[in-house]
Amino acid sequence: MQGLMQDRPLEIGALMRRAERMFAHKPVVTGTVGGETTAAWGEVIGRARRVGAALDTLEVPVGARVATFAWNTQRHVELYLGVPSTGRVLHTVNHRLFTRDLAHILSDAEADVVFVDRSLMATVWDVVAETANVRWVVVMDDGAPGPLPDDPRVLDYEELLDRIPQGRESTHSVTDENAAASLCYTSGTTGRPKGVLYSHRSIVLHALLLLGADTFGIRERDVVMPIVPMFHVNAWGLPYAALMSGAALVLPGPAMKPQELADRLERHRVTFTAGVPAIWRGLEPLLATHDLSSLRMIVSGGSALPETLSRAWEEAIGLPISGSWGMTECSPLVAAGRLASALDDRSADERRSLVGLPGPTVPLVDVRVVDDEGRPVPYDGSVSGELQVAGPTIASGYLGTDAGADSFTADGWLRTGDIATLDEYGYVRIVDRTKDVIKSGGEWISSVTLENGLMDHPLVQEAAVIGVPDERWGERPLAYVVPVTGADLDETELRRHLAGRVASWWVPDRFAFLDQIPKTATGKFAKAALRSRVRATDTDHRPL
Amino acid sequence: MQGLMQDRPLEIGALMRRAERMFAHKPVVTGTVGGETTAAWGEVIGRARRVGAALDTLEVPVGARVATFAWNTQRHVELYLGVPSTGRVLHTVNHRLFTRDLAHILSDAEADVVFVDRSLMATVWDVVAETANVRWVVVMDDGAPGPLPDDPRVLDYEELLDRIPQGRESTHSVTDENAAASLCYTSGTTGRPKGVLYSHRSIVLHALLLLGADTFGIRERDVVMPIVPMFHVNAWGLPYAALMSGAALVLPGPAMKPQELADRLERHRVTFTAGVPAIWRGLEPLLATHDLSSLRMIVSGGSALPETLSRAWEEAIGLPISGSWGMTECSPLVAAGRLASALDDRSADERRSLVGLPGPTVPLVDVRVVDDEGRPVPYDGSVSGELQVAGPTIASGYLGTDAGADSFTADGWLRTGDIATLDEYGYVRIVDRTKDVIKSGGEWISSVTLENGLMDHPLVQEAAVIGVPDERWGERPLAYVVPVTGADLDETELRRHLAGRVASWWVPDRFAFLDQIPKTATGKFAKAALRSRVRATDTDHRPL
Repeated sequence: MQGLMQDRPLEIGALMRRAERMFAHKPVVTGTVGGETTAAWGEVIGRARRVGAALDTLEVPVGARVATFAWNTQRHVELYLGVPSTGRVLHTVNHRLFTRDLAHILSDAEADVVFVDRSLMATVWDVVAETANVRWVVVMDDGAPGPLPDDPRVLDYEELLDRIPQGRESTHSVTDENAAASLCYTSGTTGRPKGVLYSHRSIVLHALLLLGADTFGIRERDVVMPIVPMFHVNAWGLPYAALMSGAALVLPGPAMKPQELADRLERHRVTFTAGVPAIWRGLEPLLATHDLSSLRMIVSGGSALPETLSRAWEEAIGLPISGSWGMTECSPLVAAGRLASALDDRSADERRSLVGLPGPTVPLVDVRVVDDEGRPVPYDGSVSGELQVAGPTIASGYLGTDAGADSFTADGWLRTGDIATLDEYGYVRIVDRTKDVIKSGGEWISSVTLENGLMDHPLVQEAAVIGVPDERWGERPLAYVVPVTGADLDETELRRHLAGRVASWWVPDRFAFLDQIPKTATGKFAKAALRSRVRATDTDHRPL
Repeated sequence: MQGLMQDRPLEIGALMRRAERMFAHKPVVTGTVGGETTAAWGEVIGRARRVGAALDTLEVPVGARVATFAWNTQRHVELYLGVPSTGRVLHTVNHRLFTRDLAHILSDAEADVVFVDRSLMATVWDVVAETANVRWVVVMDDGAPGPLPDDPRVLDYEELLDRIPQGRESTHSVTDENAAASLCYTSGTTGRPKGVLYSHRSIVLHALLLLGADTFGIRERDVVMPIVPMFHVNAWGLPYAALMSGAALVLPGPAMKPQELADRLERHRVTFTAGVPAIWRGLEPLLATHDLSSLRMIVSGGSALPETLSRAWEEAIGLPISGSWGMTECSPLVAAGRLASALDDRSADERRSLVGLPGPTVPLVDVRVVDDEGRPVPYDGSVSGELQVAGPTIASGYLGTDAGADSFTADGWLRTGDIATLDEYGYVRIVDRTKDVIKSGGEWISSVTLENGLMDHPLVQEAAVIGVPDERWGERPLAYVVPVTGADLDETELRRHLAGRVASWWVPDRFAFLDQIPKTATGKFAKAALRSRVRATDTDHRPL
């Protein structure tokens, strides 16, 4: 027996109509180098409709991929709305990827049109120009200097929109909520980047999740500043959540220096912001000179949140940083940091640590941890295994390839490649990446735990730990450490610091000091690069 | 091009699995006359699984209707979960309906099994016993006295569950999110009650909406007490929202006296509660003697919230009552009271009034107001017309009948039968019911506005206004007024009170004083009964 409820699709166009009706007056601010621009949501949505109509005039078919190389800007929001609401697929691309990966992504996705911020043209033009399927390159002029390529495919964004008569709309709209809405490639730490294809349904459900009081609680009176880039995983869905809730949106644009971010957070009385730990680390020295008392939630993701960092923020502004956990394949949010009421009696330090964990899982997302035979382990917070995820906001495969087939179980769950525990309150605790965990004497050592332990030391800026082959134990940990500038730090002090924090046999055998840890394009530790370094330097005494 | 996201249905069984994993320790409290019982969510869900298995043993087919006559209790929650999660349709019935309507509803729905609280057996047994399709009547013993009918169809709930071995589950589950999950009949103020058939999809989406920070913001650390009955519109979805968020649930059971409700709100430090204005009116005298400081949100619905009532609550406990608007056909929530940030500069009195309005509409629900020709009017807060609603949580029709076909427009929107305005911040303001609005001299007079104006008078307990035929003006308002007990109140004072509050030509020509306003089974003013009274008394001078 079927229910008798209206068959209305969950789709981005419906969010636009509602926001136009209720939130047209709310602001969308974009940072520029040395200034900023402001438009109302109503104007942004109106311009997004013209984007959709412009794609009609460019004869971009429904289902075609429309790629973007852009900062967090108003125009990027216009593309977030105008492209998918007219049936095309928004394909955000991370311009920081290696040229080789960029070329692969653009041709793999068969991008039909590419929108590029003028300040990024110099970075991406060579790759874009050589991609066979790209018919048009639309430049969004953000005032960056330098000439534009003399190429007939190059158009100007504002001229394109100016050609659309006021009130003209695309002839296309979306009636199937399972239609593709946007595309984002994984960062490719485990091979070539693979395309994750979000549907209208997954995007709308994910935005609803972000409005949940126990997730991010995004609401109309929020001022949301996504520092996480819009070129990766839809900026964690925050632009869509702001549209759905009517929150004001403050976008940093290319002005991503800590001083610029801190000024903007203060000036606009931002209430909610999200970014990776490196952002919070960079802002930390500015907390004493900025009034950030308007913030009610700061979410950190992308990698583990160092305890010391959250403590420093709480001491400076009275608010700890919240952890989170997600993946490109998961839209991305799976777990959001909060304190379960059963843990209210913990000490202030423990409560801050709990909030900084990935947190309990969000509604609609099902998680399990399985042992080596694929059997679920108890939700007891102690037995670890591979974390697997299922739900309507989780990928079922990758675009145009079965290369990722081993990322899914026989019953259709996503294998995250992370080793984790789950406890009885739903907290996810990431022990390590499957490929980063160190197997020593038949037992596991968590590289993440060692890194967090090292980064708790006040003189450690960053630390990355990898396993290196060892004849007796199989593997042993090697720690790369970046000391705080000018700090006097040695191996003995680090050993003393780790004693009591981790089991004695976890303490790394070797320490190496670096000026910086190599990073991937999305800001994660590039452990593959560190392992290559070991292979290169160790060939004298160990065959690999 | 289709997205590549997992095809996972939005269904109640998934909510149960997640809650078992994360919220098993949280309490579900049920009031009894003179006491209460407590179980953990984990136990409640475990018992709900046994309910599902028991329905297998009773050979209740998938899709069959399982009716309930029950208070807000733990067992009713078990049926809310165990019935739909195994593919049957939960059919909650309001035992306060007229016997004639009850008989119609049970046979129209073809109820296969009926679950009845023992304290309601005396009320409903005669109707249930005579309904042809009912095979089993399962009595939930709440300690009420009196013998049970000697009838082979009568079973005991606990005995039924005891027969199911520990860990046994139903062989049925739900894979289609559009499958029917529950059924509720309209209150039938405009004809025979009609069945609204909710799907798993609509129930899960509606629960997600209630978690939204701008809707009810239900979260894990809430203690939710639904005073709204579980026998009508799924208690506004609150049991499902509590399950989804992991909130503690406090259920009044049959202990619905104001003193019992106030004691329970205080004892359990309830943070969120919802009910109709008559409940808040009844509790008002107890506010001075109860510590209700734990409440963070009190939602009123079902009829307009009198301004004086919300003011009295705010003065007593520091928290105004929030308005809301919904219908059986809308799951029910369409609008939830809150203050839009653009209105922050209003006076304290205005802010309280705004929060007490139905409020801005919730996500996913599309609304419009149309004129007599069906054309949408501007969202300006002044032009009124019929309110129409669309969305995935809104009914598309009624069970087994096309009697309600004129309730829907050609493009599939629900015609609410309410006259309303919509403003630029999304606020819905109900002017009147289509059939209650008074047409006087070619202009409209809002009976609701007059009623609220009268109820603002400190000596008025309740007021209902209807239109009566008038030779000169077509219709003129007649006000029925219930004075506060012992109050000295006359027509002159009421005219003086209304002057300045409404246009002079809106002031009723006639006032009649009553001991109480007749009400429908769901507590709304029974204006049809008032109109019959006029016809009966006015036949001497006006043909009808």
